[in-house]
Amino acid sequence: MSHRKLRMGMIGGGKDAFIGAIHRIAANMDGQVELVCGALSINKEVAIESGKMLFLPEDRTYTNFEEMILAESKLPEDKRMDFVTIVTPNFAHFAPAMMAMDHGFHVVIEKPIAFTLDEAKQLRAKQEETGLMLLLTHTYSGYPLVKEARELVKKGAFGKIRKIYVEYCQGWLSKLSEREGNAQAAWRTDPKKSGKSGCMGDIGTHAAHLAEYISGLKITQLCASLNVVVEGRMLDDDGAILLRFEDNATGTLMASQITAGEENALKIRVYGELGGLEWAQQEPNTLTLKWLDKPAQTLRAGGNYRDRQSTYAVHNTRTPGGHPEGYLEAFGNLYRNFALSLMAKLNNEEPKPEWLDFPGVEDGIRGMAFIENVVASNLSNEKWTDYVI
Amino acid sequence: MSHRKLRMGMIGGGKDAFIGAIHRIAANMDGQVELVCGALSINKEVAIESGKMLFLPEDRTYTNFEEMILAESKLPEDKRMDFVTIVTPNFAHFAPAMMAMDHGFHVVIEKPIAFTLDEAKQLRAKQEETGLMLLLTHTYSGYPLVKEARELVKKGAFGKIRKIYVEYCQGWLSKLSEREGNAQAAWRTDPKKSGKSGCMGDIGTHAAHLAEYISGLKITQLCASLNVVVEGRMLDDDGAILLRFEDNATGTLMASQITAGEENALKIRVYGELGGLEWAQQEPNTLTLKWLDKPAQTLRAGGNYRDRQSTYAVHNTRTPGGHPEGYLEAFGNLYRNFALSLMAKLNNEEPKPEWLDFPGVEDGIRGMAFIENVVASNLSNEKWTDYVI
Amino acid sequence: MSHRKLRMGMIGGGKDAFIGAIHRIAANMDGQVELVCGALSINKEVAIESGKMLFLPEDRTYTNFEEMILAESKLPEDKRMDFVTIVTPNFAHFAPAMMAMDHGFHVVIEKPIAFTLDEAKQLRAKQEETGLMLLLTHTYSGYPLVKEARELVKKGAFGKIRKIYVEYCQGWLSKLSEREGNAQAAWRTDPKKSGKSGCMGDIGTHAAHLAEYISGLKITQLCASLNVVVEGRMLDDDGAILLRFEDNATGTLMASQITAGEENALKIRVYGELGGLEWAQQEPNTLTLKWLDKPAQTLRAGGNYRDRQSTYAVHNTRTPGGHPEGYLEAFGNLYRNFALSLMAKLNNEEPKPEWLDFPGVEDGIRGMAFIENVVASNLSNEKWTDYVI
Amino acid sequence: MSHRKLRMGMIGGGKDAFIGAIHRIAANMDGQVELVCGALSINKEVAIESGKMLFLPEDRTYTNFEEMILAESKLPEDKRMDFVTIVTPNFAHFAPAMMAMDHGFHVVIEKPIAFTLDEAKQLRAKQEETGLMLLLTHTYSGYPLVKEARELVKKGAFGKIRKIYVEYCQGWLSKLSEREGNAQAAWRTDPKKSGKSGCMGDIGTHAAHLAEYISGLKITQLCASLNVVVEGRMLDDDGAILLRFEDNATGTLMASQITAGEENALKIRVYGELGGLEWAQQEPNTLTLKWLDKPAQTLRAGGNYRDRQSTYAVHNTRTPGGHPEGYLEAFGNLYRNFALSLMAKLNNEEPKPEWLDFPGVEDGIRGMAFIENVVASNLSNEKWTDYVI
Repeated sequence: MSHRKLRMGMIGGGKDAFIGAIHRIAANMDGQVELVCGALSINKEVAIESGKMLFLPEDRTYTNFEEMILAESKLPEDKRMDFVTIVTPNFAHFAPAMMAMDHGFHVVIEKPIAFTLDEAKQLRAKQEETGLMLLLTHTYSGYPLVKEARELVKKGAFGKIRKIYVEYCQGWLSKLSEREGNAQAAWRTDPKKSGKSGCMGDIGTHAAHLAEYISGLKITQLCASLNVVVEGRMLDDDGAILLRFEDNATGTLMASQITAGEENALKIRVYGELGGLEWAQQEPNTLTLKWLDKPAQTLRAGGNYRDRQSTYAVHNTRTPGGHPEGYLEAFGNLYRNFALSLMAKLNNEEPKPEWLDFPGVEDGIRGMAFIENVVASNLSNEKWTDYVI
Repeated sequence: MSHRKLRMGMIGGGKDAFIGAIHRIAANMDGQVELVCGALSINKEVAIESGKMLFLPEDRTYTNFEEMILAESKLPEDKRMDFVTIVTPNFAHFAPAMMAMDHGFHVVIEKPIAFTLDEAKQLRAKQEETGLMLLLTHTYSGYPLVKEARELVKKGAFGKIRKIYVEYCQGWLSKLSEREGNAQAAWRTDPKKSGKSGCMGDIGTHAAHLAEYISGLKITQLCASLNVVVEGRMLDDDGAILLRFEDNATGTLMASQITAGEENALKIRVYGELGGLEWAQQEPNTLTLKWLDKPAQTLRAGGNYRDRQSTYAVHNTRTPGGHPEGYLEAFGNLYRNFALSLMAKLNNEEPKPEWLDFPGVEDGIRGMAFIENVVASNLSNEKWTDYVI
Repeated sequence: MSHRKLRMGMIGGGKDAFIGAIHRIAANMDGQVELVCGALSINKEVAIESGKMLFLPEDRTYTNFEEMILAESKLPEDKRMDFVTIVTPNFAHFAPAMMAMDHGFHVVIEKPIAFTLDEAKQLRAKQEETGLMLLLTHTYSGYPLVKEARELVKKGAFGKIRKIYVEYCQGWLSKLSEREGNAQAAWRTDPKKSGKSGCMGDIGTHAAHLAEYISGLKITQLCASLNVVVEGRMLDDDGAILLRFEDNATGTLMASQITAGEENALKIRVYGELGGLEWAQQEPNTLTLKWLDKPAQTLRAGGNYRDRQSTYAVHNTRTPGGHPEGYLEAFGNLYRNFALSLMAKLNNEEPKPEWLDFPGVEDGIRGMAFIENVVASNLSNEKWTDYVI
Repeated sequence: MSHRKLRMGMIGGGKDAFIGAIHRIAANMDGQVELVCGALSINKEVAIESGKMLFLPEDRTYTNFEEMILAESKLPEDKRMDFVTIVTPNFAHFAPAMMAMDHGFHVVIEKPIAFTLDEAKQLRAKQEETGLMLLLTHTYSGYPLVKEARELVKKGAFGKIRKIYVEYCQGWLSKLSEREGNAQAAWRTDPKKSGKSGCMGDIGTHAAHLAEYISGLKITQLCASLNVVVEGRMLDDDGAILLRFEDNATGTLMASQITAGEENALKIRVYGELGGLEWAQQEPNTLTLKWLDKPAQTLRAGGNYRDRQSTYAVHNTRTPGGHPEGYLEAFGNLYRNFALSLMAKLNNEEPKPEWLDFPGVEDGIRGMAFIENVVASNLSNEKWTDYVI
């Protein structure tokens, strides 16, 4: 197989969709992937118009995902898509992902991986059966300094981890926007499309993923309290959780979509015996290290001490310090690592460890389990609920 | 009664004590109070040496508080102390406070007001009986922008309050310092001197006070989880609490003395329907206002829009914007308002509302109740514990 | 002409080059441009290897720019490149740009536009003669909040502009790196490749461009002092300039490549009668507005008050507030606007004003004039030198 | 001589004056100084009313400075003031300072030391003749982290110093406030009361002092450009200066009182071969250290690595890290060190080096010389003016 760009198909993500456009930028950015086909909307007109806007050929602008997967699977190997990206609302992740894998296509799935934990487990079984690759876009683990944070924890820079605070505050659901024509708000607050939980499902899962990713510790017990703050809303729009982790670490997770004035304020702090770290997604190129008995340090992405940063951080940085990379680059890192790993697989080459560092089906399962455990804890009068999968 | 400086006596606060020195600076700062006598240590030599360092006359350098209160009460009215400041460890607040009031002296008490809720209630009864004035030094309510925050909430700038996050992180007890000759650590982690709770009693109470002070809402239920993180410690050194407030507001309170690398990181965020506020004690001259649909604003203490700041903020600011005031000035504001109110009382004048804005016995009772409720909740397997006084 | 992606050729930018990779990411990002050919290095092997890495077909991997321009001009119209991007060192901008335009290709030129002011003027004449489009990548004007700043000034939000402070501090030339195998350092400090000025040419020009772009005021007089701080260096690596602008505004420009520890610290402050603004490239999603008699405001890219931001800011933002965009997106905005304008031209459609907002030949001429005037002033004992073009 | 509080008299500083109140807080704060007399205003009524407000005895409330100095000099040694603080407008510093020293009183003088360089030199001669102590309140050198910065430079942490940027931006003279009843503005913009320069005299001198204090390098040449921005004003309200220092360091100084929206934004950056430092007066408890090839560090006043901070920083800090001290404490440090040195002198004890670290007559002379050199350079068409004293 010759060295070439990977071919991507897309399900969902028509014009006006938010996350589909993000996925395309992320996939385009590094010149390793080209979009070759799409079933961009269940609305035929939108699908066709969106295809035009994206310069897709007419014959590969499909109007539903079944048609696309079938048609692409019949194309010659050197033409058909290599993988499919699924950016539909949560309830519509599972079916196309299963079908795609059944037809031999690798998959990229927007988080959450599925609608229920059970679906997630079926996806795992299917992946194990087919040996195909799966990327789950837990974007925030794509930032270089998130990776640096994980590596610092892993190598014991802070000693034993004691405390993890993670929070994710947004304000965009402060009003009943789902009744005011906001399409994003409408499906995300609808239990039939979004799932059992609103805020905790949508953003709490990102926070939980980040906490486990950086600390290397799994949540073992939790005590959750969810709120429906805006009257008339069908799902939680706010909540807080007391957390217990492996190895006696404890923590808190706060997530809210009604903290009016906040944008996308994901922030994490992790403390060990010797010091702690702080990272905030809105200024992602700075990682603050605090020390018990030394001045705090400010680590910068691409800083001029790169040789002492981890391979994982360096590999996921495109520019020298002071040339800020952001959300799209973090997203792009997921695609880039997925693409590098997939190219290696297609070429029968050995992938580098840092290429394989992208979220997949296990992260998806933990995400779904998180939602189920949080909802269960919220309904319980007991203080602590065991985290079960 | 002529216009003159107020005369202060001090119990505790000998050389090497931390908080006594702070009280003296706070009292001195505005030139309204002079230290005239002290029982500065239970160690006779330390008491005498400390008196010398503070330029006290020998005959008013006492070696125990009973002696001082008795001796001062026998001095002529134009010479004896007006009020006594109690800066001993927690277990030794109650007795001198009661005795001082019994002898007609006004009192200033370092927080917490007493060792138990019951003692606090006795102090309230005594104050009601005697009509004397009592200042409880919940320092953080002395900052001008904390007062501005309260006034903004009160006048409805953010609409109905929905969410309160408060946290207080320190790192100074990350090791078992109480066994390494740290006197501060020793008494604060000793249940016989400190009380039922360590971290939550020492700093959690400040956080709870600030949350209630700014929001104007009382805690009604809580779900607490306390930890003894450092092995061998006798009291909690870390904890987190889910909070329910009046009017359906909810929140979280995190307090820790083992978040290594943190100094004195008290921080609060309050959100309502229209926006929110954020204030951090370590940079106290900035109050950030966030808005649902407008750019955030940065309010500054002494800012050149003072005419639109509240009387409470302006009255508690000594310098124009950009001349940073800090912890000592906030502390000084408590003394200044107490002194202004006391002078007014002595002169039979009407105090201004902003003079009377200092913490007193009711704050002390809520502080003790907070500790008792938190400890009860921590021991309970029920998720929610009603906050009772 | 059908709706299609634009085809880009690249001159320079082989593997290991810095700015070529940046240009490719910027061009790729929005899916409007595809790289179809390149003369990526004057080293044949590097050129070929680089072509492979970029998935270029062998027959369009050229080994020098003349060959590429000639060969591409002979390809059928629906296959040949639409425009060429020139990312060679400064001394090698002019010849390929002229030849490209002579053969009917639009051009993108990395800043500075040429080696001398005279060359810049010839490029202007050539552009006028051919009617082709030219993008000069003054990256920093691509940031949405830089555009917002310009629009705020333009509409008089700050009243008459009085003061402009701009600075650009880097530390990467703190040592004599050009003698230690740093290729970037080597050509940039070599007057034969870089031009008359080092630091002021490389980064001072960016600062001057930004100052004029945001303020809308041209520099009229300057007083420059340049330094060669690192012994053995051939060009200035540091300097400062007093500035006079149109309409009696004054300012300062500081640029340094020896401020050890700084990364890419471009920062601007502009003050008028009523207030001022502050923007720093390293945290580009925040624009601080300060007011004479109101609290400062923090404007955020993509903020949830977008409807009140200028069309220019909104058009150049891809994500909602809190999803940080950075340097690559700012760079991408130049390409995106150039591409949108070029597509409109090719389709005989009317471009929108915000598409045409990208730097071009006039900016290039002012950049070269800036360098010449700064160097002249530095050599003069007179305090003020008139800025001449 | 017994151990006792020092007795202070004050000239100027009646009610409504700004800086007099600041001096009193600074003097009071540490309980080492008591105000015993004052000639607080040239307006008799104001003088008397101010004396009452400050609890001064009637017989030591004077109505002009000559009267006070004479009367106090006739009091018994154990009653009369030890030193006099002069907080009148600039033109009225010299006469009382000379007279006070002639009568054996130590002096504290608000900056600038005098109205002209010649007066400053006479004060030096008088001090040398009398052996009395003189404190000049260059406040900003009183901050602990300014001292730490100086010590870091002195011990070579940054290698040879190359670059010094200092700036001092205020906005309070953005309008012609001197004509609108602003008394502060009125005298400070009046050449008869303020001196040869407005902005540069008032705040530029602070910036210059800070630059020389921290860097340990003297200005040797300068190129100044001053502006009268607000029409109708009599003195400069804005300006910028290119600087040359000893040892080939260079720098810039910007000072402005018309940068609308700024409060008291004094900021300094110093860079050497190995790294640099940054300190901003508005957040004075943080000192940022940047390094050529290591992550930046954030040094905090009172940080829990105190044992590795300089004696000078530690001695000038009252509280542990995270309990912010500010402008008043920095001011207080000047008084405290002056008082400690004076007490040592009176007690014939050896002062510690850190006590003697307060600004005095030599700083005053450099301040006056700075003003004269800046004004001369501004009038010159030559680029560089030698800094002469």
